[in-house]
Amino acid sequence: MNQDYIKPNNWSIIEEGFDVERVKSSESLFSIGNGAMGQRANFEETYTGDTFQGSYIAGIYYPDKTKVGWWKNGYPEYFAKVLNAPNWIGIEIEINDELFDLNACTNIKNFRRELNMKEGWYSRSLEATLKNGTEVAINVMRFLSLDLDEVGAIHYEITPLNKDAKIVYKPYVDAGVTNEDANWDEKFWEPLEVKHSGNEAYVTAQTFKTHFKVTTFMHNSVFENGKNLNLSPTNFNTTLDKIQSLYAVIVAKGKTSSIQKIAGYTVSLNHNNTQTAAEKAIQAALAKGYNQLLQDQIAAWAKIWEMSDITIDGDVKAQQGIRFNIFQLNQTYLGKDSRLNIGPKGFTGEKYGGSTYWDTEAYCIPFYMATKDQQVARNLLTYRYNQLDKAIENAEKNLGFKNGAALYPMVTMNGEECHNEWEITHEEIHRNGAIAFAIFNYHRFTGDYTYIPEKGLEVLIAIARFWHQRASFSTAKNQYVILGVTGPNEYENNINNNFYTNYIAKWCIDYAFEQIQKVSLEHASDHKRIIEKVKLSDSEIQEWKKVADNMYFPKSEELGIYLQQDNFLDKDLVPVKDLDPSQRPINQKWSWDRVLRSPYIKQADVLQCFYFFEDHFSKEELNKNFDFYESFTVHESSLSPCVHSIQAALLDKMDMAYTFYLRTSRLDLDDYNKEVEEGCHITSMAGTWMSIVEGFGGMRVKNDALHFSPKIPKEWDGYSFKINFRNQILKVIVNHNETQITLEGSQDLTVYVNDQPVLVRANEHATA
Amino acid sequence: MNQDYIKPNNWSIIEEGFDVERVKSSESLFSIGNGAMGQRANFEETYTGDTFQGSYIAGIYYPDKTKVGWWKNGYPEYFAKVLNAPNWIGIEIEINDELFDLNACTNIKNFRRELNMKEGWYSRSLEATLKNGTEVAINVMRFLSLDLDEVGAIHYEITPLNKDAKIVYKPYVDAGVTNEDANWDEKFWEPLEVKHSGNEAYVTAQTFKTHFKVTTFMHNSVFENGKNLNLSPTNFNTTLDKIQSLYAVIVAKGKTSSIQKIAGYTVSLNHNNTQTAAEKAIQAALAKGYNQLLQDQIAAWAKIWEMSDITIDGDVKAQQGIRFNIFQLNQTYLGKDSRLNIGPKGFTGEKYGGSTYWDTEAYCIPFYMATKDQQVARNLLTYRYNQLDKAIENAEKNLGFKNGAALYPMVTMNGEECHNEWEITHEEIHRNGAIAFAIFNYHRFTGDYTYIPEKGLEVLIAIARFWHQRASFSTAKNQYVILGVTGPNEYENNINNNFYTNYIAKWCIDYAFEQIQKVSLEHASDHKRIIEKVKLSDSEIQEWKKVADNMYFPKSEELGIYLQQDNFLDKDLVPVKDLDPSQRPINQKWSWDRVLRSPYIKQADVLQCFYFFEDHFSKEELNKNFDFYESFTVHESSLSPCVHSIQAALLDKMDMAYTFYLRTSRLDLDDYNKEVEEGCHITSMAGTWMSIVEGFGGMRVKNDALHFSPKIPKEWDGYSFKINFRNQILKVIVNHNETQITLEGSQDLTVYVNDQPVLVRANEHATA
Repeated sequence: MNQDYIKPNNWSIIEEGFDVERVKSSESLFSIGNGAMGQRANFEETYTGDTFQGSYIAGIYYPDKTKVGWWKNGYPEYFAKVLNAPNWIGIEIEINDELFDLNACTNIKNFRRELNMKEGWYSRSLEATLKNGTEVAINVMRFLSLDLDEVGAIHYEITPLNKDAKIVYKPYVDAGVTNEDANWDEKFWEPLEVKHSGNEAYVTAQTFKTHFKVTTFMHNSVFENGKNLNLSPTNFNTTLDKIQSLYAVIVAKGKTSSIQKIAGYTVSLNHNNTQTAAEKAIQAALAKGYNQLLQDQIAAWAKIWEMSDITIDGDVKAQQGIRFNIFQLNQTYLGKDSRLNIGPKGFTGEKYGGSTYWDTEAYCIPFYMATKDQQVARNLLTYRYNQLDKAIENAEKNLGFKNGAALYPMVTMNGEECHNEWEITHEEIHRNGAIAFAIFNYHRFTGDYTYIPEKGLEVLIAIARFWHQRASFSTAKNQYVILGVTGPNEYENNINNNFYTNYIAKWCIDYAFEQIQKVSLEHASDHKRIIEKVKLSDSEIQEWKKVADNMYFPKSEELGIYLQQDNFLDKDLVPVKDLDPSQRPINQKWSWDRVLRSPYIKQADVLQCFYFFEDHFSKEELNKNFDFYESFTVHESSLSPCVHSIQAALLDKMDMAYTFYLRTSRLDLDDYNKEVEEGCHITSMAGTWMSIVEGFGGMRVKNDALHFSPKIPKEWDGYSFKINFRNQILKVIVNHNETQITLEGSQDLTVYVNDQPVLVRANEHATA
Repeated sequence: MNQDYIKPNNWSIIEEGFDVERVKSSESLFSIGNGAMGQRANFEETYTGDTFQGSYIAGIYYPDKTKVGWWKNGYPEYFAKVLNAPNWIGIEIEINDELFDLNACTNIKNFRRELNMKEGWYSRSLEATLKNGTEVAINVMRFLSLDLDEVGAIHYEITPLNKDAKIVYKPYVDAGVTNEDANWDEKFWEPLEVKHSGNEAYVTAQTFKTHFKVTTFMHNSVFENGKNLNLSPTNFNTTLDKIQSLYAVIVAKGKTSSIQKIAGYTVSLNHNNTQTAAEKAIQAALAKGYNQLLQDQIAAWAKIWEMSDITIDGDVKAQQGIRFNIFQLNQTYLGKDSRLNIGPKGFTGEKYGGSTYWDTEAYCIPFYMATKDQQVARNLLTYRYNQLDKAIENAEKNLGFKNGAALYPMVTMNGEECHNEWEITHEEIHRNGAIAFAIFNYHRFTGDYTYIPEKGLEVLIAIARFWHQRASFSTAKNQYVILGVTGPNEYENNINNNFYTNYIAKWCIDYAFEQIQKVSLEHASDHKRIIEKVKLSDSEIQEWKKVADNMYFPKSEELGIYLQQDNFLDKDLVPVKDLDPSQRPINQKWSWDRVLRSPYIKQADVLQCFYFFEDHFSKEELNKNFDFYESFTVHESSLSPCVHSIQAALLDKMDMAYTFYLRTSRLDLDDYNKEVEEGCHITSMAGTWMSIVEGFGGMRVKNDALHFSPKIPKEWDGYSFKINFRNQILKVIVNHNETQITLEGSQDLTVYVNDQPVLVRANEHATA
């Protein structure tokens, strides 16, 4: 953990001082994105120090051949992987005939990065002395336009401080990039064409195998003291996959020279002709110009914040943390395109391969559902519906299921499985449950039932079929059991009767059963269409129900808890507080067998079940299970603290709730796990949002009504958040004395605060 | 299974007819070896068809960088791997200016291979027509000398049948070889020097990283109709890692030309100067000449057979099977060198990486103990003693154990772990038990106690320490448990309280405890030396005993069986007989999760425990456990049927015993698992030997005395085997009427036949 790294600030992420050891971490933290593309905070100019270059385009992936020591049946041959995209930011710079490279400079002063989350831009400034003695001041700003989401803009200023300088700008676009995370060091990009015309230049390349075509374009303008010099390139350096334009200027000591680079990608996902599209994208951007693009950017982010901001008064670190989380989620996914999803690292790194995990359904959907139009959450559900055929194929071809049972992949880009550890790929099957739960949750929150007869029911049936087939009957227990699984707690593998998995399996069948009845009554033609399509008989449904009605759940009557798995109580139950701190994190210190036989839990598992199905259990049960499992949980998954924070708040353990909140919200900013250089933990950021809204705010939907039971950490003076509830906007403001609820909408709404009804009139506020 | 592939024959393995599909399988089956080197039955001449080239030198390995999809703490960075060695057999042949290549010939007739097990040679003969129309008859014989174990000899005859032929022989030695089984397609051999002198030529190369230096040498003589032409090479083709000598002759139609190649390896394991050693090896071989070398070979194999042959009357397939097994074991390991061990594929393939598995202790030692001088078994024990430090290091550095606890590697060449699947590498810890059991078994059989105070006790202490630390206390069970293991049945992973593992863990501690007492009383100075070296206190021993005395064993009182593991009875217990045959072998048809949650057992597990500790259990217990577990066992490990055969015989289930025997003895000859092309299953061949001697012969050692309870399959007229029992040789001949026991030795011996004492006088025989 590094608490002094990022300066506390309500609206910005700020780093001061240059530290070569922090370059890669800052490249992650200061990443920018606009939902369609993303960029790590790599320097524009040459940097020969340690760096992790990363540019990413949403939906563009490469099927990397699987690497594995010992092959197991059912492993995917290839897996679709996040791809480092062509470089659009690069600007080589020669100053008095020396290549400017911070790694070769001395006397670096006033180095400062800022990620301005309110306005959606990133800047960097510094002063440095080159080997040739030239002292320069550098100021760079860049952003990825939300409005023109194929376009990024860079403004790069140089001021020679101690002498006149000959400066040669060499902006470039380059498809000759590689992935750090490549299994066989293969090249992923095949160059197709390099073109230039005046101040514009283009590299078109396509991914091998998947043949995504991408034109990376740029347009450059050179300024002196803010005045466009209308220069044309003096020369071009061209290779098969890179083009570089050269602009030479003489800049007097103390004067400021700058270059503006408008650049980005057009991709074959969206255009038949990416070259023509690139030319149009440049025209559209130039029509506005850099300054207008920036003003539009500020306005677009203001609109996002207007709906999704959470304010926290009196605790600047907490405030900064939550805004960083909300900002990154919006940089990653804006919900415009149902072909896209939310990768665990967003656009901040390559790790974890594919883009879609159960994180989306379990953690991200609540955030998007409440802070955007409901179509966004529906797009996320549709993503899975569109991949249903592949999930059925996965279950059938790879795992031996039949009759339309679906197992969604653990990790995917295009519906095919991307992961190859049997204990995860083949056994972490609870992911199916979260996908069904998200359908339930979407309906519960939005009230929009249409998704279920249109699409959702097919998914629910295929998932119910899976659980029916996956359970087996134990003669010894005289009940159905689910053997050989890995639960959300990945620190136990191949266990029997994971409580979470068994519970959600039963729930999936029951829920599918109910929805079949409901669709039959209320949407008869959809019911007919679907039942015929999936060939579902009443007798099959009865077989499912037999499994659901006779599912086994491991339990200790003595302790009053449900069991993680059948044999959990055989473990050596030393709580985390008695574990030698030098042994943590255990996944870095211990061999895997030792992790597995220990009682330590990576992330909420039984408690995840209590989180999803809170109203199925009493508060006393929650209390007992929370006390038991929390004592063994090491939270080495970023997805763990948020659930504990929500439940601690519910149980009035406010100190604990606050501690968990801070941990989840500042996980990356304070680099708790010493790994932020690999990228930020994007999906868990949605969990942070839940910690406030569902945890402190106590928001729930029960019987079609919004409930709150607001609590406030003693460290805070107050906090506020907004919710889009069924197309009306509620703002909830909480302080130590009261809760104020404002409704922006057209219809009066009754909400419940601490179980008491509160009528909120349209465009008025109520206090409770 | 292919029952018609190999012709039934008492003493030879014979293939008739050329089938390109069988080339790789025959290359395995017709492999030759002499304990120091081995050679697959690759053709000497060019063959452009599908082939798997393999030459191997005992003790020469390469540390191949680990390949794994997802790294786990504790995995080895490298693993030592069987190495394809330089080619010593190669002879390119031009006949009338065409390269002779069976894959390009037509009209291939009378193709025949023979592996003469009695005399220890391999031959191949055929007739074929080249594209240029020349018809030739080919006769080749080769062997690896037992007496001069660095030397192989090839006699290669060509008879042009329809016209005169210009023949150019191009014998070569070549270090430019690669491994099929290489993780990263690295080159393993670095060429050092290529030399020639007259009819001799040499390539010296060394392995990268391990720097084993090997000189591969050859000497060639060309003959016509049996007369040495005393030709010198007309030319040499030389590259950095290959040298080829050219001999050109004109052979009249119907005349026979031949080349004799004496070739082999000298290695830095045995010589400071491998070049000089190679020259001496050639001199020694030439001093004898090919014919004498062959006569010596026949004599040396006669000596081996004299002691280790098993005869079976009236069942030629059974006879051929057992001799093939005994032959291959002797080709693989002769016990002269305690640096060597017995690889699962011997010298017949590359698969499975390192050379040493628990197979050695559990299956091979009984064979070598009974058919060789006891020093051979002692060398195998010493191999582990010499690697004790590395086993302690493995437990400490990789797995978090302390205080001198040892975990021997699952797979090794040099004491370091070679395997990288957590469920095997980290969890298949029962291997430690077999290593302790082998010490007990050696003493029980040979009566030689000296090994224990000299070396064995240190191993026993380190293993006892491991089990003491590895067990944990279950409050729920109020006993010690062993969580998260893989038993001998690798079709269950990360299970709790595997009966075999728990049982042998307790036994190891108890046995170490007893031996500490015994050494203390009988070898006080050794006791003092060892206790001081390993810093063992009485209180530590008491802690061990607490674990051993309170070990938990899973059991079903209702079924009267011990349980594979805690949750075995929760499985869907469909016996193998009700499993759709199209689903077998399940390890090729099913995804791993499905294998794991099935009740199907790969190899004897609870029954392996009953095999090791037969006298700890009643026959009734054995019967119940056998009936239960046999019904779920798919025998997809080559190590499984032998134990079942032995126990079936004990339980008078003779049909079953015979079926299991035949399966184990002809596993490779009939290619049951369709994989013999990868190499033969060498270690399980020792299990085949046990099936007869311990199974049908009922041999046991109890209270320092030999026991037999002979039974005979109804398919046989009789059988016989020999045993070296404490330096006296017993021959046991069994037929349907009686058992005859002959003693070659100097002291009368009382043995027990069906529990009745039988006095056998020295150099006489007794009948029972």
